[in-house]
Amino acid sequence: MSVLDSLTLGGNDGTMQGNDTLSTVLWLSAHPEPRSLNGSLRSVGITHLHDIGHTVLTSDLYAMGWDPVLRSRDGAHPAQTDGPTTEAADTDSVHSPNRFRVSADTRSAHIAGTQPHEITREQEKLRRADAVIVQFPLWWYGMPAILKGWFDRVFVSGFAFGTDPASGRRLRFEQGPFAGKRALVVTTLGDRPLAIGPRGKSGELRELLFGLLHGTFAYTGMSVLEPLAVPSADRIDDFDAVRDQLIERLDALFTEPAIAYRPQFTGDYTPEWELAPHVCPGEHGVRIHTAS
Amino acid sequence: MSVLDSLTLGGNDGTMQGNDTLSTVLWLSAHPEPRSLNGSLRSVGITHLHDIGHTVLTSDLYAMGWDPVLRSRDGAHPAQTDGPTTEAADTDSVHSPNRFRVSADTRSAHIAGTQPHEITREQEKLRRADAVIVQFPLWWYGMPAILKGWFDRVFVSGFAFGTDPASGRRLRFEQGPFAGKRALVVTTLGDRPLAIGPRGKSGELRELLFGLLHGTFAYTGMSVLEPLAVPSADRIDDFDAVRDQLIERLDALFTEPAIAYRPQFTGDYTPEWELAPHVCPGEHGVRIHTAS
Repeated sequence: MSVLDSLTLGGNDGTMQGNDTLSTVLWLSAHPEPRSLNGSLRSVGITHLHDIGHTVLTSDLYAMGWDPVLRSRDGAHPAQTDGPTTEAADTDSVHSPNRFRVSADTRSAHIAGTQPHEITREQEKLRRADAVIVQFPLWWYGMPAILKGWFDRVFVSGFAFGTDPASGRRLRFEQGPFAGKRALVVTTLGDRPLAIGPRGKSGELRELLFGLLHGTFAYTGMSVLEPLAVPSADRIDDFDAVRDQLIERLDALFTEPAIAYRPQFTGDYTPEWELAPHVCPGEHGVRIHTAS
Repeated sequence: MSVLDSLTLGGNDGTMQGNDTLSTVLWLSAHPEPRSLNGSLRSVGITHLHDIGHTVLTSDLYAMGWDPVLRSRDGAHPAQTDGPTTEAADTDSVHSPNRFRVSADTRSAHIAGTQPHEITREQEKLRRADAVIVQFPLWWYGMPAILKGWFDRVFVSGFAFGTDPASGRRLRFEQGPFAGKRALVVTTLGDRPLAIGPRGKSGELRELLFGLLHGTFAYTGMSVLEPLAVPSADRIDDFDAVRDQLIERLDALFTEPAIAYRPQFTGDYTPEWELAPHVCPGEHGVRIHTAS
């Protein structure tokens, strides 16, 4: 594990924190081979963010040996936290006698402070971050499993969604707990550029990634930037051009306009979570959730 | 692990194979708690498929302890197959001296027959299946990591996509290796029904799952059925109604019309993977890849 994979708290890590720190950025990435295009882009990106004065926190999931599988140990009862994960861990749960209820039990464990350290450590990075870069190779038109399981395990009810344990406030969209943070996807793919364009066979990228961009980032309150895609990734002739493109996007991380996903609680939606009849009348599909 | 989780080869498992077997169905599922709505639906579904005469193969990923993380051991060189996964495993790869190239190296290992047994076992189930049921709780508007990683690891180039090792034929869409197989998603979610409807805030389900339905199932040649969604899954008052709905869909598994995703090689698309100008002129987005 490189020094970049450790959490830089309190500015103790001089390597990763500039003297004139502007903001804190979490670089979350998932590729099994550091000597890859993804590995190179990661290095370039982290170095650049540091050079322009940001503090950089990192989670290099393969290097960390991250376990992406949400299991009952994530919802362990306080009395059981020091022991191995067993059925007994769920026995006393208010919501779920004798069985594991994913959302309720992980929420309870989060509130009780009994979730595994590997989860609270990631949550702490996210709390500190003003922006998150989520970098991955597009596998089967989605995130690699190791990355999907970061969201499955870290984005627990009471932390990322649900209701706020203290105030009872609904944590969603413009009321989401991560409001004010920005999210940028950087993804490489084998398909050629037009395949993910507006009429591309692989699916227009913003719609293809709707579950991540809108259902995860926007849902938790983040401002979502247009994803940066690197197509034809197996045939990159000019790495400099790709590098420049990445640097340009990182320079604009806190200034470029976010995708205009609609807020949920200002009249655009019905209580049944449907777009109100007066908005985009007669239209349907994921695109209607972006204001034009 | 229950008897259902073992591969029923050659009809030796009387429990899971009827006397008048019609077809073979793979039930692929991912939920950490058997005593859950998902667990109940799984039991009901498998029992019913058996009752109506199908052979049922199963992959209950949590029960199997499936490892969803694609690593270099999936692309190990023949000489290294008995040893642990190390960098050396990649050293002699034609495509990738000294580093792991995901697609090329897993393809090479597939052709050489050196992939881990846990992968070839799943591939064999899929080869035998006439239909696949993919059942999961919708987490962050996608598959749980353990399931996403089934596709990441099992759907290797030369088996599920790429070019056919023998004929050189492109394995994609109507030329896909799984042509003739049917795929049905069964998914539970906390959101209420309208949230995944045509104007629902969570995203119209067919568009939300485009990467799976089109980018994975249709891409590999399968006929894709309309997904069966069970919304408000935390507040099911009438399990019988849900059960009846599932049984109805299973009864129609081989007869209901598939989603009319467009074939790739019959003139609808350009060689650059764009929908040809004469098809849905002026339109864009994932929906244009379905013929109306």
